[in-house]
Amino acid sequence: MTNSILEQLTHHRSIRHFENKSLSSEQVAQLVDAAQHASTSTFSQQYSIISVTDPETLKQIAKITGHGWMLNAGHYFVMIADQYRNLKIAQQNDADAYILHTTDKFLASTFDVAIATENIMVAAESMGLGGTIMGSVLNDPRKMIELLDLPELTFPLLGIALGYPKDKPELKPRLPKSAFHFSNHYNLGGNFQPELLQYDQLVSEYYKERSTNDRTETFTHHIVSELSRGHDVRSDLFAIIREQGLMLH
Amino acid sequence: MTNSILEQLTHHRSIRHFENKSLSSEQVAQLVDAAQHASTSTFSQQYSIISVTDPETLKQIAKITGHGWMLNAGHYFVMIADQYRNLKIAQQNDADAYILHTTDKFLASTFDVAIATENIMVAAESMGLGGTIMGSVLNDPRKMIELLDLPELTFPLLGIALGYPKDKPELKPRLPKSAFHFSNHYNLGGNFQPELLQYDQLVSEYYKERSTNDRTETFTHHIVSELSRGHDVRSDLFAIIREQGLMLH
Repeated sequence: MTNSILEQLTHHRSIRHFENKSLSSEQVAQLVDAAQHASTSTFSQQYSIISVTDPETLKQIAKITGHGWMLNAGHYFVMIADQYRNLKIAQQNDADAYILHTTDKFLASTFDVAIATENIMVAAESMGLGGTIMGSVLNDPRKMIELLDLPELTFPLLGIALGYPKDKPELKPRLPKSAFHFSNHYNLGGNFQPELLQYDQLVSEYYKERSTNDRTETFTHHIVSELSRGHDVRSDLFAIIREQGLMLH
Repeated sequence: MTNSILEQLTHHRSIRHFENKSLSSEQVAQLVDAAQHASTSTFSQQYSIISVTDPETLKQIAKITGHGWMLNAGHYFVMIADQYRNLKIAQQNDADAYILHTTDKFLASTFDVAIATENIMVAAESMGLGGTIMGSVLNDPRKMIELLDLPELTFPLLGIALGYPKDKPELKPRLPKSAFHFSNHYNLGGNFQPELLQYDQLVSEYYKERSTNDRTETFTHHIVSELSRGHDVRSDLFAIIREQGLMLH
């Protein structure tokens, strides 16, 4: 038993090649509407969305993220953790704004951002669009903050590049359920090794068959290469979040 | 121009009253499948899912969250930030595990969790189910960690209570677009006050009309009451995350 929504969700792939065609303002409004109707933590709607259309700003973001292909997208969103709007409400009502500066509230904003981001992706795919969620805006949050005029208690967490797909990459195989979905207790047991080897084999076949890229790669190798990243990469992330007044307590 | 997926996304409401009927194992497998096909940060799949079916554990989680109604749900998931699986891979390959302990990687796990959570919610609704995403598992993460045997580098972030809806609450009005969706620059301008008043009016009408609850409430009042929460609530969240080995750098 399946349905068209399950079919779509289980056939998601990130799209990085787009037709040269912008999204209409109606499409953008529909995406924002889908985002806003997602759940938010304590219904406090602790995020905001910025549509970036200015070519110079887009170029700067492409530079920050290292993803020049995003310049061919039909629309670009930056998703902002936002406790500033509620700070304004606090100030207008002489309320204590302490909790807006807590780890708890930063997490709430992060949930709100990511949940809304996925709604945008699902909505976009239902409209025949595709795209990629980009954590790479975190490569230089100070620059992002400056570019987008972000006030205190806000933070740029994710970008979303969307457009009309120019290709349809094969589906990447996911981790085996036994290494991922547990019952009542976390149990990454003795089974993990054989399962991982089998999964590595699957991932390796995926890369061999993928038309656009013939690198040899396994999940294990992918994780190990990530781990070789320099310790200095994004090492000031926590400090910058706190500069914005978030996660102070 | 709309479609059935957009229709569903824009008609989401949280469901807290369920028929007395469990989800089948096939339904649970479909939900986990939908979750796994969502985007993950750098395709590193840095989260895990625990299905909680043990009645005693569910009772404990109901106590932690303060939401007794979750005991009537047809299924309960806890979504876990998980860098432990990749730590095992690091150890087996003598790789440097430093970055698994960074703020960056904790954020990546948080994105992965929340994005997958929303996919579960969207998938569930497409199957005629409903539910609520529960940040209230953060009320007592130490107890959650103990209940679910969570190892280092994991953290319980969200619960998801799902089931067959017993009611259909009205749709809560969302923030006006002008206070929420900006173009190129963050701009919560002078327009915010009149827009907020108008929104407060909408929210107040929503609560008046809602059959199950006749409280008088505005968005402003809701935010101000949240702010009155004691400073000690979840005050050790950051410390507990670090006890788990996360956000150390």
